[in-house]
Amino acid sequence: MSYFPNVSKIKYEGPTSTNPFAFKFYHPEEKIDGKSMEEILRFSVAYWHTFTADLSDPFGNGTAIRPWDKYKGMDLAKARVEAAFEFFEKLNVPYFCFHDVDIAPEGSTLRETNQNLDIIVGRIKEYMQDSKTKLLWNTVNNFTHPRFVHGAASSNNADVFAYAAAKVKKGLEVAKELGAENYVFWGGREGYETLLNTDMKLEMDNLGRFFHMAVDYAKEIGFDGQFLIEPKPKEPTTHQYDFDVASGYAFLQHYDLQGDFKFNIEANHATLAGHTFEHELRYARIHGILGSVDANQGHPLLGWDTDEFPTDLYSTTLAMYEILKNDGLGRGGLNFDAKPRRGSFTPEDLFHAHIAGMDSFSIGLKIAQKLIEDKVLENIIEERYKSYTQGIGLDIINGNTDFHKLEKYALELSEIKNESGKLEQIKATINQYLLNVYINQ
Amino acid sequence: MSYFPNVSKIKYEGPTSTNPFAFKFYHPEEKIDGKSMEEILRFSVAYWHTFTADLSDPFGNGTAIRPWDKYKGMDLAKARVEAAFEFFEKLNVPYFCFHDVDIAPEGSTLRETNQNLDIIVGRIKEYMQDSKTKLLWNTVNNFTHPRFVHGAASSNNADVFAYAAAKVKKGLEVAKELGAENYVFWGGREGYETLLNTDMKLEMDNLGRFFHMAVDYAKEIGFDGQFLIEPKPKEPTTHQYDFDVASGYAFLQHYDLQGDFKFNIEANHATLAGHTFEHELRYARIHGILGSVDANQGHPLLGWDTDEFPTDLYSTTLAMYEILKNDGLGRGGLNFDAKPRRGSFTPEDLFHAHIAGMDSFSIGLKIAQKLIEDKVLENIIEERYKSYTQGIGLDIINGNTDFHKLEKYALELSEIKNESGKLEQIKATINQYLLNVYINQ
Amino acid sequence: MSYFPNVSKIKYEGPTSTNPFAFKFYHPEEKIDGKSMEEILRFSVAYWHTFTADLSDPFGNGTAIRPWDKYKGMDLAKARVEAAFEFFEKLNVPYFCFHDVDIAPEGSTLRETNQNLDIIVGRIKEYMQDSKTKLLWNTVNNFTHPRFVHGAASSNNADVFAYAAAKVKKGLEVAKELGAENYVFWGGREGYETLLNTDMKLEMDNLGRFFHMAVDYAKEIGFDGQFLIEPKPKEPTTHQYDFDVASGYAFLQHYDLQGDFKFNIEANHATLAGHTFEHELRYARIHGILGSVDANQGHPLLGWDTDEFPTDLYSTTLAMYEILKNDGLGRGGLNFDAKPRRGSFTPEDLFHAHIAGMDSFSIGLKIAQKLIEDKVLENIIEERYKSYTQGIGLDIINGNTDFHKLEKYALELSEIKNESGKLEQIKATINQYLLNVYINQ
Amino acid sequence: MSYFPNVSKIKYEGPTSTNPFAFKFYHPEEKIDGKSMEEILRFSVAYWHTFTADLSDPFGNGTAIRPWDKYKGMDLAKARVEAAFEFFEKLNVPYFCFHDVDIAPEGSTLRETNQNLDIIVGRIKEYMQDSKTKLLWNTVNNFTHPRFVHGAASSNNADVFAYAAAKVKKGLEVAKELGAENYVFWGGREGYETLLNTDMKLEMDNLGRFFHMAVDYAKEIGFDGQFLIEPKPKEPTTHQYDFDVASGYAFLQHYDLQGDFKFNIEANHATLAGHTFEHELRYARIHGILGSVDANQGHPLLGWDTDEFPTDLYSTTLAMYEILKNDGLGRGGLNFDAKPRRGSFTPEDLFHAHIAGMDSFSIGLKIAQKLIEDKVLENIIEERYKSYTQGIGLDIINGNTDFHKLEKYALELSEIKNESGKLEQIKATINQYLLNVYINQ
Repeated sequence: MSYFPNVSKIKYEGPTSTNPFAFKFYHPEEKIDGKSMEEILRFSVAYWHTFTADLSDPFGNGTAIRPWDKYKGMDLAKARVEAAFEFFEKLNVPYFCFHDVDIAPEGSTLRETNQNLDIIVGRIKEYMQDSKTKLLWNTVNNFTHPRFVHGAASSNNADVFAYAAAKVKKGLEVAKELGAENYVFWGGREGYETLLNTDMKLEMDNLGRFFHMAVDYAKEIGFDGQFLIEPKPKEPTTHQYDFDVASGYAFLQHYDLQGDFKFNIEANHATLAGHTFEHELRYARIHGILGSVDANQGHPLLGWDTDEFPTDLYSTTLAMYEILKNDGLGRGGLNFDAKPRRGSFTPEDLFHAHIAGMDSFSIGLKIAQKLIEDKVLENIIEERYKSYTQGIGLDIINGNTDFHKLEKYALELSEIKNESGKLEQIKATINQYLLNVYINQ
Repeated sequence: MSYFPNVSKIKYEGPTSTNPFAFKFYHPEEKIDGKSMEEILRFSVAYWHTFTADLSDPFGNGTAIRPWDKYKGMDLAKARVEAAFEFFEKLNVPYFCFHDVDIAPEGSTLRETNQNLDIIVGRIKEYMQDSKTKLLWNTVNNFTHPRFVHGAASSNNADVFAYAAAKVKKGLEVAKELGAENYVFWGGREGYETLLNTDMKLEMDNLGRFFHMAVDYAKEIGFDGQFLIEPKPKEPTTHQYDFDVASGYAFLQHYDLQGDFKFNIEANHATLAGHTFEHELRYARIHGILGSVDANQGHPLLGWDTDEFPTDLYSTTLAMYEILKNDGLGRGGLNFDAKPRRGSFTPEDLFHAHIAGMDSFSIGLKIAQKLIEDKVLENIIEERYKSYTQGIGLDIINGNTDFHKLEKYALELSEIKNESGKLEQIKATINQYLLNVYINQ
Repeated sequence: MSYFPNVSKIKYEGPTSTNPFAFKFYHPEEKIDGKSMEEILRFSVAYWHTFTADLSDPFGNGTAIRPWDKYKGMDLAKARVEAAFEFFEKLNVPYFCFHDVDIAPEGSTLRETNQNLDIIVGRIKEYMQDSKTKLLWNTVNNFTHPRFVHGAASSNNADVFAYAAAKVKKGLEVAKELGAENYVFWGGREGYETLLNTDMKLEMDNLGRFFHMAVDYAKEIGFDGQFLIEPKPKEPTTHQYDFDVASGYAFLQHYDLQGDFKFNIEANHATLAGHTFEHELRYARIHGILGSVDANQGHPLLGWDTDEFPTDLYSTTLAMYEILKNDGLGRGGLNFDAKPRRGSFTPEDLFHAHIAGMDSFSIGLKIAQKLIEDKVLENIIEERYKSYTQGIGLDIINGNTDFHKLEKYALELSEIKNESGKLEQIKATINQYLLNVYINQ
Repeated sequence: MSYFPNVSKIKYEGPTSTNPFAFKFYHPEEKIDGKSMEEILRFSVAYWHTFTADLSDPFGNGTAIRPWDKYKGMDLAKARVEAAFEFFEKLNVPYFCFHDVDIAPEGSTLRETNQNLDIIVGRIKEYMQDSKTKLLWNTVNNFTHPRFVHGAASSNNADVFAYAAAKVKKGLEVAKELGAENYVFWGGREGYETLLNTDMKLEMDNLGRFFHMAVDYAKEIGFDGQFLIEPKPKEPTTHQYDFDVASGYAFLQHYDLQGDFKFNIEANHATLAGHTFEHELRYARIHGILGSVDANQGHPLLGWDTDEFPTDLYSTTLAMYEILKNDGLGRGGLNFDAKPRRGSFTPEDLFHAHIAGMDSFSIGLKIAQKLIEDKVLENIIEERYKSYTQGIGLDIINGNTDFHKLEKYALELSEIKNESGKLEQIKATINQYLLNVYINQ
């Protein structure tokens, strides 16, 4: 029995293939600088968008045609697992991710919910034994249920804090059970609707306390996955506490959580916060807190999280540039936190969309790798900043100067000469690398 | 004597050339479906950004190094003409555009201003005799001088209306004198700072009157260029009357100016208005009002007109797709209303920036042409809309139905079946066309 | 039996009342310039937000506590009617509005859906006989059901066009049956997800055909309510065809539908389109197409339709200013297309929210009325534009001039003198009017 | 001799005064909870906008009529000082602020620039002896001159770093000389145009080094004013390193600069960063880093820094609420970093604009004070968060719990009950406070 009878295992067929169910650019075994594309890219399927969600939007009911939707309750949950592992295998993807509620239905009590979870986690564990696909990360959904209307760890209601804690405790146990490489916190409701009724200090303090307890519990049970915070500026809240990587980093430092957390950076969340995707990656990289990536893209003219599959090659190239400069993602990966458009509602579209995303990041990888190999940007930067490798510049870097010496130096300067930043030329060069990547291969 | 001694005539050297002063993709004489790239693309240099502006911004003085800036007044104006025609020739560009104040300094009276203009126009005419470069369009600047603080044709001050009219009269005479293919209206101040002190109806009525007088005068003097309105939603005003193509089209219909005007569509103005560049082109195309293009790009995260040189190949491809579907731009062209970044301040950067833009549109042209040749989107659309070629769909198109018949039909329908819109697959296909465009050439 | 046992009929208690269930500023019978506040403001309750919706958001299940939700199917529909008329009476509101699916559940066939509708419409009609509350407008929901995934009248599927037509036909019959003052079209899916698979011309043409058929059918059945188009730029679509009032007006003119339609202007849709609420009202007013108002407000930092209850007194003042200058809304009204925040989930919050909105528009009315009475803005405008009442200005207005005369005049001008626009002073004055509105009453 | 002959000293005349040159709401000596309005509000005039700038915009030359502009060079600088102190006295304002280049022209060398500065600083010092107006803060402009095209402390050019350091050294000396209460850093160019040519780590490290040197030098010379960073997300750069308060706070912690810096928060910068003004104030307040305020407002529909005088009473009320909860601004103040609109170009408009802003903050103060006196928001918050004052909530706050205990507690919970957030009711209450503030005074 198959949930995707029209699709066979996806294979690499190269740039000019016309088979819609083929990789044109993702060649898992191909080596790039000694590592396989699969090892570098560490692609992951998001369980929620692919197996649970229905493509509804605020003005429309779900359109998704999902063959497993003929089942209900726990049967549906089991059918989803079956569909998922068929999908993973056909897509040949090394990782997946989930929230607790994606895989198992909530029961009428927390106890029942946990029992449901245990059953499905057991089922997933069995499937994983026969599969190459591993768990990149899991998390718990502390935002959809009405109880989280005013927040979870930042709720004004201590009962909700406790409930959220119990869910994360279970989530960490599941993470350990399934060998998750990371555990993610996306605080969908950890922010405010309005400052007018909000004790922001208490809420942030509680969030700090919550994270400390999570760290302690992970240590206690020996879960050694990486903890990740996923910033988002807004939506569903008016303002979320982990607005972007920088505000999350301020939080970690303030609450003495540095070292315990890295960041899971989502492209669409970056742009909603007023940053490019590559900015967030760069900021995280140079601060040593780049953990994992939610690979998607937003629409530059739409003000909400569209979670589109990533197909913009400029964006995938610059993202892969940052990732390669970071020596890869470590235990992280490229998780497609993305959904087909509401009009792309067939089961086959799930494959088309993932292929589009995987191919796009594969191209990005190749271009970024070639740019680095040729030191295109590195040479520009070395040349631009060379004044810091000698004289007064080197003194600045080495801490061998002060305002007195600098003033003395400045007073003796004749005209200061700057060089052009050459952005237009650099952009043209990147276009050349893009268009040349498959010439003469 | 040369203003650009470091740059020789730019030639086509192909995709893998490493000469920064070469076209890698723009090959003027290359034929695409029977016409040369030069004829199709009709590139134009914007006089203001290239020869007049200084790269200042609201927080910084000009950085541009322009060898002709050693002159002052009319000598500077003459030097700019000389530099311009050297630039045109070296860039091998068929068109240019200007505002009156770009080419000649304002005098202390309108009469003196016109005399200055006459001298420089005469000089330009001489240069044009020995040059292939023609005038795509000219216009007058009715927005920079303090007299236009409250608008020009929409000013609350009738003297300003008269002054603006006198300037446009002169502009039309210059257009005729220099054989301009079009005459453009960009109403930089034709909008409002605030509704609180604005008689919007009187201002819009006056704008209508002004345009009618311009049409009449052009007929009178036998200027047969195309009139173009360039929409922009805001900046410098809080709200401009020609917000976008649709609002401009509403205006033309309301004031009975249809037929006399088409639109000059600028990419960055489109995005500031909340539309994609291709949306504005499509809207204009299907309404028969696509006149010309200000080819640039904005930054999706910045809320002002950045006027960047266009290098995004997705955007140039979709723009060229609309232009090819329009059977070209007619008397219009692709004018680089774009400036190098403030950090790209050398004379050489002017070449780099134009080469980047010209190459990017050339690639866009090639990809769009190939997409059309292969009917990639056409086949999708034909298949998607086929229900309108028969039965009830054809009745709808032909006007052979009404709500009674439609209801009768709908009541008999069993389940309605829609097909996937397949956006992810289409985007992946476009990426393939992009990457394959220089394979096997 | 009551659905709102904790709330009695809302009465006017004045600005300093501390009763949360009292009007502090809305005094329905109070006369303003000869008409009662009730007659001027023509408040309306939106059935969907108040009785049908559950306060879910894209990341959260519904939180709304609605006592009638204990029922299912047609019983629920009937309970909602009961709750609605209790609410209308307690709120003392003269109008309400609905979509077909708000009041009655869809059946398994269109025929069954219509039967459900007939039953509930009959029930509503009975309630209306004993109620002062009348139907401001109704419409049909052609966007929520998956069949509308690719549009309704602009769908690529002719079956969907037919189905949508059948629904509007029924909607017009319901409008006539219940004496609706207007009939509204909000084209939630009448736009596109992407241009890449869209025949924009065919879709817009079909929309034009659809509206003509609706006009014809209304005439046929003798429904004489006002037809209204409600513009929205985007959401749920990427781009909607009736982006704003101006683009809708372009559409009406192009498809020869002028005279048959006015506009229903929503504050939050205006701001999503890049306009202020008052801009859209002004544009509609001076073009004679201001029909009705969806009274709500958006959040300036959020990029989606938040549909908040209107409480910003600047916005309500400027809106009422436009409405008073329009000699009122005619058959239109102020419909609260607004929902309590997700955290305001009690039945009592429905009252609090409506009271907040009604009071805010009442204050806006009073301030606007006082501003007009004192000719605050009128005097400023008369003074600012006085140059058009004489001399060259009057010639411009009267069409007694041309570019020759204007140039002659301009050449003789010495320095042009403009006056300050005084925006800061005007804003300070408006603040004074705001703060003084309840002094010395 | 007077630069403002049409304006006498501005006096308080009360809410119903019709004298345009009177305070209607700012009553400097009036006591609010024991302190005078002047002491609480600590208003400051921004030298650059008021005496130096010309109201030019990117598309228009300056329109400002400034009687002192008849002078040139150092004479102009001296005339500005004279005009400034006349303005300060007539406006009766306790503070002013400046950048070095606002008060004195740059010379052809740094040495000459410093000499110019010394002369004008001496002149200012003399004026201050006879004036109540003190220096709230000064700073140096390290962004306008072309040498700063690629940054100042974050320039790629070490010479520029040195030059910037020399300027800040001088700025600190001036601060000490004139008794400035604070010294501000706004890094207009401390960011990047593009990541493609930027070594972000080196630039941020250098910024950290620069700040440490500034702190050291201030200690050395005994300048004990408060150091302030003024965040701005972008403009003129594409992305600025001190994007908002949170990212600035991350920076301070990372570079071990905590304790040495607070923040100067500008309303318009907050909104450009996607935050409300009050959010930035709140964030700073609860982290103990609220230093001073640049009091202005942006336009919610415009994407650039409009620097409007603050007249939105909601915004001034919420700002004053945060400031009062902070026990005032300490050594900070409310500096009008605001300019009249380009159309408000007369010298008198400078008074109108400041009066508008001062009155608006005065109203905000009174409403905020009354809200706090009545514990309007405090009671709501106390009630909302009461679960943290006992039982499991108190354990959370006190650190007496962990995931085990919380899970045990959660497992025993029956249904969790949340209370309404009541936002609509709170907003209506705030409107009442607004409208009642001058009733019965």
